[in-house]
Amino acid sequence: MNVDGKAYRTVWSDTESSNFSVKIIDQKKLPFSFEIKELLSVSDVITAITDMHVRGAGCIGVTAAYGMWLAAYQSCGDLAKLHSFADALKRSRPTARNLAWAVERQLDLLINTDPKDWTGVGLKEAQSISDEDADWCHSIGENGKRLLFDIAEKKSGDQTVNILTHCNAGWLAFSDWGSATAPIYAAHREGLPIHVWVDETRPLNQGSRLTAWELGQEGVPHTVIADNVGGHLMNKGKVDIVITGTDRTTRHGDVANKIGTYLKALAAHDNGIPFYVALPSSTFDWEAAEGGHDIPIEERDQEEVRKVEGLNDSGELIELELALPCVTYANYAFDVTPSRLVTGLITERGICDASERCVMELFPDKKKLCGN
Amino acid sequence: MNVDGKAYRTVWSDTESSNFSVKIIDQKKLPFSFEIKELLSVSDVITAITDMHVRGAGCIGVTAAYGMWLAAYQSCGDLAKLHSFADALKRSRPTARNLAWAVERQLDLLINTDPKDWTGVGLKEAQSISDEDADWCHSIGENGKRLLFDIAEKKSGDQTVNILTHCNAGWLAFSDWGSATAPIYAAHREGLPIHVWVDETRPLNQGSRLTAWELGQEGVPHTVIADNVGGHLMNKGKVDIVITGTDRTTRHGDVANKIGTYLKALAAHDNGIPFYVALPSSTFDWEAAEGGHDIPIEERDQEEVRKVEGLNDSGELIELELALPCVTYANYAFDVTPSRLVTGLITERGICDASERCVMELFPDKKKLCGN
Repeated sequence: MNVDGKAYRTVWSDTESSNFSVKIIDQKKLPFSFEIKELLSVSDVITAITDMHVRGAGCIGVTAAYGMWLAAYQSCGDLAKLHSFADALKRSRPTARNLAWAVERQLDLLINTDPKDWTGVGLKEAQSISDEDADWCHSIGENGKRLLFDIAEKKSGDQTVNILTHCNAGWLAFSDWGSATAPIYAAHREGLPIHVWVDETRPLNQGSRLTAWELGQEGVPHTVIADNVGGHLMNKGKVDIVITGTDRTTRHGDVANKIGTYLKALAAHDNGIPFYVALPSSTFDWEAAEGGHDIPIEERDQEEVRKVEGLNDSGELIELELALPCVTYANYAFDVTPSRLVTGLITERGICDASERCVMELFPDKKKLCGN
Repeated sequence: MNVDGKAYRTVWSDTESSNFSVKIIDQKKLPFSFEIKELLSVSDVITAITDMHVRGAGCIGVTAAYGMWLAAYQSCGDLAKLHSFADALKRSRPTARNLAWAVERQLDLLINTDPKDWTGVGLKEAQSISDEDADWCHSIGENGKRLLFDIAEKKSGDQTVNILTHCNAGWLAFSDWGSATAPIYAAHREGLPIHVWVDETRPLNQGSRLTAWELGQEGVPHTVIADNVGGHLMNKGKVDIVITGTDRTTRHGDVANKIGTYLKALAAHDNGIPFYVALPSSTFDWEAAEGGHDIPIEERDQEEVRKVEGLNDSGELIELELALPCVTYANYAFDVTPSRLVTGLITERGICDASERCVMELFPDKKKLCGN
């Protein structure tokens, strides 16, 4: 998508410098400054993922795919080294499905490739994964925008469609377009009046920092709210639909996503408001058990909650301590929303109910991946 | 309660200086510094309430009661002036029930009092309101602690009772003891092992700032979490009971409280976890309609969400901007949790179901106040 009028993806390769490198939009600096970060090694890629310079299911997957290109290059034909790099990349974040998916896809390809071709094949595959990610997100937009037009048609008076979203499942979370935002961008570009309620998304504020920035760049009207507010807005009829992304979804329709998603799903259900989850098929965990109880939930450093980043009076980006040092925090990064609270899944192939039957009807070719 | 070993109430009178004044613990500075603020006029009292130097239902009520003492003094026997002060005090915060209740109680008394006695009678009544508030909260603790002991008895293995609370309904929100915290303090002082999950409570972080500070001063183990986390903890069996306070509760059991309370009530209901609301009878709005739809929900300045306060590297208390200036925020301060999600109400007279029948059984003397 465009940043100040220039088209970007979130991750790309640089083969023109003396060293191969991966370039990323540094999401830790947004929206306060727009900076490109250069990753020169697998270790740099792992740090970028772990420290969330890139984040979001698709973007992590694409970054890991490019990381496997660097791994192929750095392994110098040593298969044990390649496996070791792959393992390290997979460990960099535990919950995101696309991470393991992209690494394994690269690994499967490379171990069946002549080692002298690893670097070239690895780069081409990383680019394919990035392109697929963008294409899938574009299709999610085309499929999902119909939901928004349908809502507008049924409204009398002001036809503005009010959408609530949590965290950032925008184009920054993929290579382009985004998942939850794709239907919004598609409908907005076709002239549908839209307003987005953006959950701030503590502790890292991906909503107020990233989603608000994206929507602003695209000219979509939006209002940021504290994470506590969504239930009240739904109760007061101020939300027509909730759309979130997901970091991992079971074939049964259970959705692991940014912590707090479950609370919004409960509120949507309690108020009869449709709750949709947008995802490319790469985000499905075909093997996960019903209910998602076996999905690992990342616990992150408590300092992420104790501290917050923003601009001081002098316009410097600094951190503040929100409590006394003696206070203990806990930092669970994701929760699981059970399928019974999910109205539907918006995928690149179409929209389906959040049930095994409907998911497998849309993805019959994935049956072989379902381990249980 | 004690602060560094010295007993305090949140609000008190100073009649020894040359001017009468109201003194408050300045809650805007906590937990980073403990400061006493002196209020010399009704206007100072209104500012202290509006700008939240005092906050919390009971504490606002007691502060307003002392404000009416200053109003009685400043009115110099002019009844129109007294009414005008009362109206201004009532307008300082729209949602808190205790505010109007305390002002009207003082006004009813003063208009039936010889104007030459206004100052003395107003002071005595303010002290009575403060004492009643403390006594009621103490009784809430005695009544509510039994719930915690019952939970501990039914647990096998680790008998630590895990309580989740939202915002600050601690002693800082009253004159003493608190509502939601009173059962916690009572049970903890009797040796019951307790751990409290403290919701951070954006935007003003009353949880991480005030509740965590109170619990720390009292030695109660606790962990602060982002507001998004509670649902996940309940789903994982890490919460035994939720106890919150309330700013206004209908006689039908519908609970207006800090924004986000409704989301936690939904999660408790979805996971079969008891959700209790602790309140003194002064917090009931006997006239409000069922469902609480007529309770005004305060919308506050969006700057409260855009900015956050904390300590910088040099230990100075400063504000940061969390988003670019072009971002619009909305700041709804309360929501209403319907009675169907409330397991029970813990009051100074005992615990009752959140229903009109049970509430009126406990408070038959209030029937005359029920307008509809």
